Amino acid sequence: MKVIDKIRGAANGDGRTVFSFEFFPPKTEEGVENLFDRMDRMVAHNPSFCDITWGAGGSTADLTLDISNRMQNMICVETMMHLTCTNMPVEKIDHALDTIKSNGIQNVLALRGDPPHGQDKFVQVAGGFACALDLVQHIRAKYGDYFGITVAGYPEAHPDMIQDGIATEEAYNSDLTYLKRKVDAGADLIITQLFYDTDIFLKFVNDCRQIGITCPIVPGIMPINNYKGFLRMTGFCKTKIPDKITNALEPIKDNEEAVRAYGIHLGTEMCKKILANGINTLHLYTLNMEKSALAIIMNLGLIEESKVLRSLPWRRPTNVFRVQEDVRPIFWANRPKSYISRTIGWDQYPHGRWGDSNNPSYGALTDYQFMRPRSRDKKLQEEWATPLKSVDDISEQFVKLCLGKRRSSPWSELDGLQPETKIIDEKLSQVNSKGFLTINSQPAINGEKSDSPAVGWGGPGGYVYQKAYLEFFCSKDKLHSIVENCKVLPSLTYIAVNKDGNHTSNVAPNAVNAVTWGVFPGKEIIQPTVVDPMSFMIWKDEAFEIWSRGWARLFPEGDPSRELLLQVQKSYYLVSLVDNDFIHGDIFAAFKDI
Amino acid sequence: MKVIDKIRGAANGDGRTVFSFEFFPPKTEEGVENLFDRMDRMVAHNPSFCDITWGAGGSTADLTLDISNRMQNMICVETMMHLTCTNMPVEKIDHALDTIKSNGIQNVLALRGDPPHGQDKFVQVAGGFACALDLVQHIRAKYGDYFGITVAGYPEAHPDMIQDGIATEEAYNSDLTYLKRKVDAGADLIITQLFYDTDIFLKFVNDCRQIGITCPIVPGIMPINNYKGFLRMTGFCKTKIPDKITNALEPIKDNEEAVRAYGIHLGTEMCKKILANGINTLHLYTLNMEKSALAIIMNLGLIEESKVLRSLPWRRPTNVFRVQEDVRPIFWANRPKSYISRTIGWDQYPHGRWGDSNNPSYGALTDYQFMRPRSRDKKLQEEWATPLKSVDDISEQFVKLCLGKRRSSPWSELDGLQPETKIIDEKLSQVNSKGFLTINSQPAINGEKSDSPAVGWGGPGGYVYQKAYLEFFCSKDKLHSIVENCKVLPSLTYIAVNKDGNHTSNVAPNAVNAVTWGVFPGKEIIQPTVVDPMSFMIWKDEAFEIWSRGWARLFPEGDPSRELLLQVQKSYYLVSLVDNDFIHGDIFAAFKDI
Repeated sequence: MKVIDKIRGAANGDGRTVFSFEFFPPKTEEGVENLFDRMDRMVAHNPSFCDITWGAGGSTADLTLDISNRMQNMICVETMMHLTCTNMPVEKIDHALDTIKSNGIQNVLALRGDPPHGQDKFVQVAGGFACALDLVQHIRAKYGDYFGITVAGYPEAHPDMIQDGIATEEAYNSDLTYLKRKVDAGADLIITQLFYDTDIFLKFVNDCRQIGITCPIVPGIMPINNYKGFLRMTGFCKTKIPDKITNALEPIKDNEEAVRAYGIHLGTEMCKKILANGINTLHLYTLNMEKSALAIIMNLGLIEESKVLRSLPWRRPTNVFRVQEDVRPIFWANRPKSYISRTIGWDQYPHGRWGDSNNPSYGALTDYQFMRPRSRDKKLQEEWATPLKSVDDISEQFVKLCLGKRRSSPWSELDGLQPETKIIDEKLSQVNSKGFLTINSQPAINGEKSDSPAVGWGGPGGYVYQKAYLEFFCSKDKLHSIVENCKVLPSLTYIAVNKDGNHTSNVAPNAVNAVTWGVFPGKEIIQPTVVDPMSFMIWKDEAFEIWSRGWARLFPEGDPSRELLLQVQKSYYLVSLVDNDFIHGDIFAAFKDI
Repeated sequence: MKVIDKIRGAANGDGRTVFSFEFFPPKTEEGVENLFDRMDRMVAHNPSFCDITWGAGGSTADLTLDISNRMQNMICVETMMHLTCTNMPVEKIDHALDTIKSNGIQNVLALRGDPPHGQDKFVQVAGGFACALDLVQHIRAKYGDYFGITVAGYPEAHPDMIQDGIATEEAYNSDLTYLKRKVDAGADLIITQLFYDTDIFLKFVNDCRQIGITCPIVPGIMPINNYKGFLRMTGFCKTKIPDKITNALEPIKDNEEAVRAYGIHLGTEMCKKILANGINTLHLYTLNMEKSALAIIMNLGLIEESKVLRSLPWRRPTNVFRVQEDVRPIFWANRPKSYISRTIGWDQYPHGRWGDSNNPSYGALTDYQFMRPRSRDKKLQEEWATPLKSVDDISEQFVKLCLGKRRSSPWSELDGLQPETKIIDEKLSQVNSKGFLTINSQPAINGEKSDSPAVGWGGPGGYVYQKAYLEFFCSKDKLHSIVENCKVLPSLTYIAVNKDGNHTSNVAPNAVNAVTWGVFPGKEIIQPTVVDPMSFMIWKDEAFEIWSRGWARLFPEGDPSRELLLQVQKSYYLVSLVDNDFIHGDIFAAFKDI
């Protein structure tokens, strides 16, 4: 979706303030992984979009393209990619645009760009563009209306125009006229350069309106994180610093904590003043840091720490090709990135491939589904590489996980457990201690309010429901006991399968079972999560593979713990169990007397 | 759907007994209307299909085609049309088959046919077929697998083969061989000629199996209704009558009641014996009479009088082109035939036209939507043509309707009220006495068992839900009061429109609201009824038109009652009101202090 449409939607809707975060490509691989972890947490607070910069002189081109793709498709945040003219002949520009277009990204921030490191002045490359205006014109000419195009606005004029700390009236006006030409050429949004004098920004907006620029102008706010960084950045951008700020920083400049706290205070005050002037958009230059930006947004009351609003039980995709997606099998609930990677080729949502045996199925398993960031790998090593003497030791690991004593799981991409797991954690731990190793679960929910913290989704005013769900590994004998118990518990349906595909079930192979749904005013019923037997048969390969590639590999070759895990992988069954009676049922009755 | 697939489905599923009813085309127009009323009631008991005969010598060709179409599409029962060779050149055959195919009918009973009245022997017509085998071959050659083809089986051999009350062994065997040829040529189902000696039927089935006929053989049961008719029919068909039956009938033959009671008893016993022999299909020759056939089916425990099972809140269509249909706007709830007629051209279900403004819309209003059978017209005349002096007199009519004191309504095709209306009838009558003239309603239902008699549907094991709904006409002033009340009742959504299209609403024009849904084991959520603002704008023309064409026309031109109704039609608003809070809401709060 285009950012401009989100901003217009908010303005025409509930008058909600739109906020966004800017990041830059880290220099190391580990830095990139850490950035994604951070983004993941920040995106949970529902920024309207995030943007990623294009390194000076195109130095990060491939990395920026890759990060943009992962932001849009794995983090699932509406992504705006910066694109500059520096060192970019038109073929490279088009390659970048074609790439993000095919990755479902619709937003570009078009810039001339700074000169590469070591050069003083911008130089037009052969076969390239001279300025952002050329780039905007090219994008519109070649890609029509597909992209939302943002351009930069300079409340104090472009730094090149600034001499001795100030732009002349003439330079300022010429810069404004140039901005208008960028908008007239097809840009639909302006984000400003950073500033610390709010009055300058407000005057700038007014001046823009005077010369007929009507599109939204989003203030770019850079929280002060660090005194030296602040001086460097404002020096580079030739930003005017009000005396009040200089005076406030001077006495605390060596106290990093104090500087950061002041930065949060200042940012909050600046934003308050801007909002009070009727501007409902805020853009935060995060410098890849989490705390200051979130603190400002939180101070403004735009997010509540306790209430991460979910539009669906899983994070809704932003890729333009899959915005229609509104239903997923429950199996990948803790592995959303794996699910996206396996369904990336689908061209139809929600009724793409799953449940329809006539269509080509899920993408084959690749190394991708078993890759994990170094930080998670470290955590797994700490928590899961303890010696295992028997299956009881394995059970114990799962019991600890259920009780919140493990932050990681080989079967999950997430940190810790879903909030709703707390509702059934004691019962889960009992089941696990009996040797039913749960890797996915949800409690039954019978018409809770849709804004309740642990289980709500979809916004206020509705009611949400869930059928109780358990997914676990167990031995063949234990499976037999479950199957026997289910015979006298008619509301339970199950599917069980081992690594080799031997399976048993009491439902038809095409019976898709809605296990999460919501009822909202003036809407059709929404059912975002299902148990789908056909997808289960695809999922089981991944789930079994994790025994070896997720867990056993934490131990050295030949280690008895490793052998034990591979033995379990070979002999256990994976069982998907639903209690269809979400009003009076008790899924844990299936484990009675076992 | 092909009948053979229904029979196979039942055999592979719950072992349910499949039963069906046969009818013939009545001679008068009124007879036809009465037949449809009767069928409508009988079909409520879920026969797997009904068939309609092809009059001797093709005498009823057009009528049979028309009745078949209405059976399949208006009564919504899976329909099998008889087709014979008598007087039917191939062009006529193809015309008949093309017609039913385009009407979504998939089942044909292929017969040679009896000679026309006045002729003794079957004569092949020029350009026609000599026998049912030719007809079966032709249908398969020309229409491939589209049709399910049924053929007749003669347990006592074809009457033409019977001399002096018995067929020779040779004749019987030659008839069996011929039957096998019909099956080999593509027939997938056999229905037998009537018989009264069950042993003969069972032997026949066995003989068929011996020579390699494997398709289901459905016993044709003709309940004895009337002594003379029984003699005539068995004489014509040369049916063997066991002495036991003759002896039982002889003493009661002049007592019609007693004959009918015996017929029911005999039919029940015959069926019991057949079912006990592992045959799970029964076909009843009803002779267009309701009671005996239903009584036999009821005696066998195949239906319960108190429990008319609904698979959806409305009767699911059988037309092969609309079997996917699973959602309808609530507005036509009491006018299902009108709804079908207005959507007959849609080629996509459920997401055909409604709610999608990019597609051509509902079929225009025609006389069809305002036609009614003579019996209903008579009832309306009795109940609704009473003089009306003021709008209070109009309100009084509606109050009486709500309280069950009227069996008819100009706005309904149904007899009386829906069972669920009983739940809110007192409150409805209060609302009507205030001048809100309700034409459609449903109570809120919060998770009732899906087999509960008044509101259940979809079979056992699930839970059903409804948002409270009211649709009514009211004056502009009264609408204003409702709108004011809704301002403090946030769970209420409404759409109001007058005859000229002036409208007001507190929902988006594309906000489709599910108002009936069900949750079932191992299934996706089913939401068969919605309030769809775009359809409402189509419906309102029909609803307003009924003031004149449904009610005012019961009075003579110039009559003051007629003028009053037309005045109301011109000045009132039609209001659709939903209480979205199906758990804690109270839709009647909208009428407080009015």
